[in-house]
Amino acid sequence: MNRGDWLIEEQTPSYQTRWRVREVLHEEQTPYQKLQVLELEDFGRALVLDDAVQTTVGDEFIYHEMIAHVPLFTHPHPERVLIIGGGDGGTAREVCRHESVQKVDMVEIDRAVIEACRKHLPEIACGMDHPKVNLVVGDGIAWVADHADEYDVIIVDSSDPVGPAKGLFNQAFYKNVFRALKADGLFVCQVLSPFFHQSLIRDVYGVVSAIFPITMPYLAVVPTYPSGLHCFMLGSKRHSPLREGVRTPAWPTRWYTPAVHRAAFQLPPVVAQLLEPSGSQAGQ
Amino acid sequence: MNRGDWLIEEQTPSYQTRWRVREVLHEEQTPYQKLQVLELEDFGRALVLDDAVQTTVGDEFIYHEMIAHVPLFTHPHPERVLIIGGGDGGTAREVCRHESVQKVDMVEIDRAVIEACRKHLPEIACGMDHPKVNLVVGDGIAWVADHADEYDVIIVDSSDPVGPAKGLFNQAFYKNVFRALKADGLFVCQVLSPFFHQSLIRDVYGVVSAIFPITMPYLAVVPTYPSGLHCFMLGSKRHSPLREGVRTPAWPTRWYTPAVHRAAFQLPPVVAQLLEPSGSQAGQ
Repeated sequence: MNRGDWLIEEQTPSYQTRWRVREVLHEEQTPYQKLQVLELEDFGRALVLDDAVQTTVGDEFIYHEMIAHVPLFTHPHPERVLIIGGGDGGTAREVCRHESVQKVDMVEIDRAVIEACRKHLPEIACGMDHPKVNLVVGDGIAWVADHADEYDVIIVDSSDPVGPAKGLFNQAFYKNVFRALKADGLFVCQVLSPFFHQSLIRDVYGVVSAIFPITMPYLAVVPTYPSGLHCFMLGSKRHSPLREGVRTPAWPTRWYTPAVHRAAFQLPPVVAQLLEPSGSQAGQ
Repeated sequence: MNRGDWLIEEQTPSYQTRWRVREVLHEEQTPYQKLQVLELEDFGRALVLDDAVQTTVGDEFIYHEMIAHVPLFTHPHPERVLIIGGGDGGTAREVCRHESVQKVDMVEIDRAVIEACRKHLPEIACGMDHPKVNLVVGDGIAWVADHADEYDVIIVDSSDPVGPAKGLFNQAFYKNVFRALKADGLFVCQVLSPFFHQSLIRDVYGVVSAIFPITMPYLAVVPTYPSGLHCFMLGSKRHSPLREGVRTPAWPTRWYTPAVHRAAFQLPPVVAQLLEPSGSQAGQ
């Protein structure tokens, strides 16, 4: 990849997004994936894994605020948090803003991602260097299997369910997540687009709702992700994300507000139908 | 354009969306614009004007439900409706579902759009042939200037503010819209993406809010539009879209619900800031 080239993300074989590359900041084949940090003309510096844009400085705040603040404000007093993945550091950055949080274990499998983000995306990666964060380079699947009754909130901030993140989308993993949570704990994972990944959303909902008493998908718009519409799955032992008294952030946010939090759970019928065993297809 | 070619939509000179074309159904240079109806591999048949996707059978329901039902359910009893533009017929189709609506004037400037959509997008264009619809091929700008105190709801379903739709985005037009509305009337127009068209949204908000006592933008996700996030501007003389008692559709919808209606008005701070005279930039 050279400056001036196009980064081509194939959403399907017949639907592409193309970004012009202003600068190639980093390129490496890690033991886990192809890793690039590219400066895109329109969205600025971007982490790209296996040719898929993971996050850009232009719109990362939406994804990171919505994956962090929705679960952390759903829990009335989160103290212990586990982040699986999230090697860019943006989720850790948002989690550490919560005063009640005392310690964040962050388990990222690919050290090269951490190092590249620290060097080239410091405004995102700064989250990993917060004193509350215990950064572990290791396997998040093994980590949750080794911990029980420990966390208030677990955030699975993974790449897509191919490559190193594949094992983060199956029943055994979610059962271990349940076990690693305290009696009123909750977790969230990202499950991609209701327009392009319908069977994934249906499958994850089926598995998570068989384990957690409260399972609720929510939506956010992430312009650099396929279709713009992105889905998160929240599984909770006790607290509902729509409970009364969700707090207001004590710091300025760019996307999250308590009203945006509630709005994110108002699913259009075509998305809600994905949660029915015989649900119809969204979009297409 | 031939089958197998890519339809390339340049959102900016350095950011493109590409759709593979399965079939070219219609191509024509009209007096107003380049008109194509293409069958895309992923979203199905699509109306394309001046190389920009206007609507596809795969996701048109989102745009049409949100531009029609939000204003029509905001008004407690809409009887007379004006649609400016909307030559694909989808907005008329949704408007006519409202039992209270007695007559819909629809003023589309480009006869060729109507004819091509009737032939190739019948599931959308059927709206224009509803007995409630008075279809006029003509200039919507002149039409609103010639009518006063006549409509409960006006829907400006235009293409982007270039080409034939340019005159639909200035102060003189919105003043005429105000005059054409009854004493408790309201209108909506589409104002593109908060990520790519920030100055447009700011300008339209400024002009509309100087004329209408209630001016409120709302958001929807349209996967085939740039960034996925699409903004509509609602101007109302009396009724708030967040009033109590918004009715539930008496027919099955795919995207709109009263909860989705309310959620659409919960603006993230980065979008709300666009409405301040010295607002900061969204996204980039």
